[in-house]
Amino acid sequence: MFQSFNRYKRITNGTVVPFDKNTYNPFPAMQRKPQGARSRDGISINRRRLMRDLNAIGRIGIGDRGAVTRLVFSIKELRSRQVLIHLMRQAGLNIRIDAIGNIFGRFEGTDPRAPAVLAGSHLDTVIHGGKYDGPVGVIGALEAVRTISENKIPVRSSLEVVCFVGEESSRFGFSTLGSSLAAGEVHAKDLTNAVDPQGTKLENVLAALGITRRNMKSIQRDPKSLKAYLELHIEQGPILEAIGKRIGLVTSIAAPSRFRVIFIGRADHSGTTPMNMRKDALVASAQLIEYIEKICRKYASMEKGRVVGTVGAMKIEPGVINAVPGRAELAVDIRGTSARSKNQVARIVKHQARAIAKQRGINVKLQTIREEDPVPLDKRLLRVSQELCDDKGIDYEIMPSGAGHDAMQMAKITPAGMIFVPSKRGISHNPLEWTDPRDIALGAQLLMETMIRVANEKL
Amino acid sequence: MFQSFNRYKRITNGTVVPFDKNTYNPFPAMQRKPQGARSRDGISINRRRLMRDLNAIGRIGIGDRGAVTRLVFSIKELRSRQVLIHLMRQAGLNIRIDAIGNIFGRFEGTDPRAPAVLAGSHLDTVIHGGKYDGPVGVIGALEAVRTISENKIPVRSSLEVVCFVGEESSRFGFSTLGSSLAAGEVHAKDLTNAVDPQGTKLENVLAALGITRRNMKSIQRDPKSLKAYLELHIEQGPILEAIGKRIGLVTSIAAPSRFRVIFIGRADHSGTTPMNMRKDALVASAQLIEYIEKICRKYASMEKGRVVGTVGAMKIEPGVINAVPGRAELAVDIRGTSARSKNQVARIVKHQARAIAKQRGINVKLQTIREEDPVPLDKRLLRVSQELCDDKGIDYEIMPSGAGHDAMQMAKITPAGMIFVPSKRGISHNPLEWTDPRDIALGAQLLMETMIRVANEKL
Repeated sequence: MFQSFNRYKRITNGTVVPFDKNTYNPFPAMQRKPQGARSRDGISINRRRLMRDLNAIGRIGIGDRGAVTRLVFSIKELRSRQVLIHLMRQAGLNIRIDAIGNIFGRFEGTDPRAPAVLAGSHLDTVIHGGKYDGPVGVIGALEAVRTISENKIPVRSSLEVVCFVGEESSRFGFSTLGSSLAAGEVHAKDLTNAVDPQGTKLENVLAALGITRRNMKSIQRDPKSLKAYLELHIEQGPILEAIGKRIGLVTSIAAPSRFRVIFIGRADHSGTTPMNMRKDALVASAQLIEYIEKICRKYASMEKGRVVGTVGAMKIEPGVINAVPGRAELAVDIRGTSARSKNQVARIVKHQARAIAKQRGINVKLQTIREEDPVPLDKRLLRVSQELCDDKGIDYEIMPSGAGHDAMQMAKITPAGMIFVPSKRGISHNPLEWTDPRDIALGAQLLMETMIRVANEKL
Repeated sequence: MFQSFNRYKRITNGTVVPFDKNTYNPFPAMQRKPQGARSRDGISINRRRLMRDLNAIGRIGIGDRGAVTRLVFSIKELRSRQVLIHLMRQAGLNIRIDAIGNIFGRFEGTDPRAPAVLAGSHLDTVIHGGKYDGPVGVIGALEAVRTISENKIPVRSSLEVVCFVGEESSRFGFSTLGSSLAAGEVHAKDLTNAVDPQGTKLENVLAALGITRRNMKSIQRDPKSLKAYLELHIEQGPILEAIGKRIGLVTSIAAPSRFRVIFIGRADHSGTTPMNMRKDALVASAQLIEYIEKICRKYASMEKGRVVGTVGAMKIEPGVINAVPGRAELAVDIRGTSARSKNQVARIVKHQARAIAKQRGINVKLQTIREEDPVPLDKRLLRVSQELCDDKGIDYEIMPSGAGHDAMQMAKITPAGMIFVPSKRGISHNPLEWTDPRDIALGAQLLMETMIRVANEKL
């Protein structure tokens, strides 16, 4: 039997919630603003506790100018997982850690056989990143489940707070590692090129954890044990702020085509080589970089698939002031919400790289790094959050995600949904990453209410 | 009393040179080709010995693919100096080493009060360089003086074979270190920014050698002790090969304007930031890199000052595939044989950097690295070599040097001249650097005859 959301309201309406310093909210601003974190039932997440724990995680790996660095499997990242485990224990959750280190903190529902509703994100960061990309989703889910538990809100499905390992690709060039494994989506061949700048192979790190090519699939979470996966995340882009909305409901996750372009010209002396006799790999790269901006601007509209293209990493050789660069290696990232447009732009860029090389009489090599298709998220989950927002008069935007997230892996084995909160000036992967705590709290509140409804209702 | 070149010829003509396995030339190719290393007088340098010693030096610091790395003050560079000292001793030269480590191997002339004729170059290399840039001038001069000594050719002025320390800027970003000090051209402030990638300060290295800001000037060689400085060097450019000539006589040395351009945009997430909201420092750099090529092509002609411009080194931040580069640092090198044109192009490039930044709404910083003016070499020395070439029917090219050399420092205290030999495909600062041994021998022969004439005649 499913409990309806209305029945849950009836149950909790009128219940006297005992005073608890943990759930007591001392911020009058939140009381003054009925649109927001406070539900109509008076059950609301505790913004102060949420921010306390978020900031505790944010201090792990903090450095100059507030930059946070917690690369996957680094001491700092492991420490952040320990803190999470501690917080989960405090909240009385049953903790399970899988072979790769994904953490599941479970709050038992009323029906032990019902599939679970998962919510979470990741705690690892890029190099010199911010404190919200990832932790907002983990601590937000924790706060949601803590609030449900403390308020004894009945849920049929069990709820699980999830922390996935290694969502960022900054260390091994391999993104959504933990969720890919949990979704059974990692193939042995994907790992062969995953090496960190110190030369440590991801494969060896996994082997040390007992994960081999043969037993890799065993990490996969049984899809039958899952009802849904929800992820609260900062937008990491400027759209919500620009249109003045506090919540984004995500329709799909844009996926990247990533490839390496290597121009091979000839290293020459910078003083003695006349301009017309050079084979400058950097000038060829410059032409391609400009071209990528140009073509992506053409494909920028929603109808054209919102394509964005970036050269984010680059290496030139010999790389000294007195030598014409003989070799240049560019890492190109093309994303879009339509697979067709994205693939088309990637093809055009590769074609242009060859054309530039030909025109300059130099060589070019193209290497695929990763080729992914955009992932549609679950429409029913989106509708649940949308109805809740409509009920409360929260102004939301239905939008695609430009960034990749763990949800895009989980979507392969269970219905997945995402809730965005605004990023100040759209900045992310940067120490200046910031989201208003009121928006984070609002996101966590919406996550909580969505979880309750999904746990109790038929999708 | 000056001995004329003709008189020297008369003295040596008809002299029976005893058989000596060191001077015996076993390469019939050289006998078959009268245009070349062999002088009309039959006194010729020993190509085999020259190449033997050049190759001995070339094996010091050799690595993968034949790349040679002898950074200044490295173990390998010090070893190459030891080998040179050994060879100088074998040749019976009087060796003097100054405070910085410049080596002077002296062959006494007939007039002990006459100023000396110096010839040499350097033994340090760039990272992964070739075996000829530098050593050809040092070992070439040694071979010239050895030949003069063995054949008892009388010279009025003493001859000195010179090895200058640290001509390449690859380690400390400071070029022609030893010759600058010998010319009294180093100022304390020039050293403040000279630091190697490991953080070792050039200033501290000098201090360890007993060279301080206060006694720096004492290394200067007394100009009155010098009659001329001659330097044999590989062209390091493609011109001689392209026009099919074996000797270049150098009119002047182009000098670089070197500066750093730092574009400061904003690091953003590569997936979530729409193209029109980006502040991409790399695309700005790309525009500037293309522009430098364009403007330098306009100033490429001899009349326009043979300007060349290069971005040889570049750094972007954060430098990861999933972030829009927020910061890009370019090292720009602009050279020309006319100070006016070179400075004009440097000004135009800086102006363009500012214009690009303005148009893109980002910031730009400009930092001067080094600002030098082209150095004219001595016309009289050039004429001596030119006459010798004309006499022997050697086809030469009168040309500027695009690269910097120790001669450009020595020119400040004594008449200086340079002789170039062709570089295969113009390649230098590269393991593929190569010059035909017959051309190296021809250059050493011309150097020897020029030295003899300069030592004996009034300039």
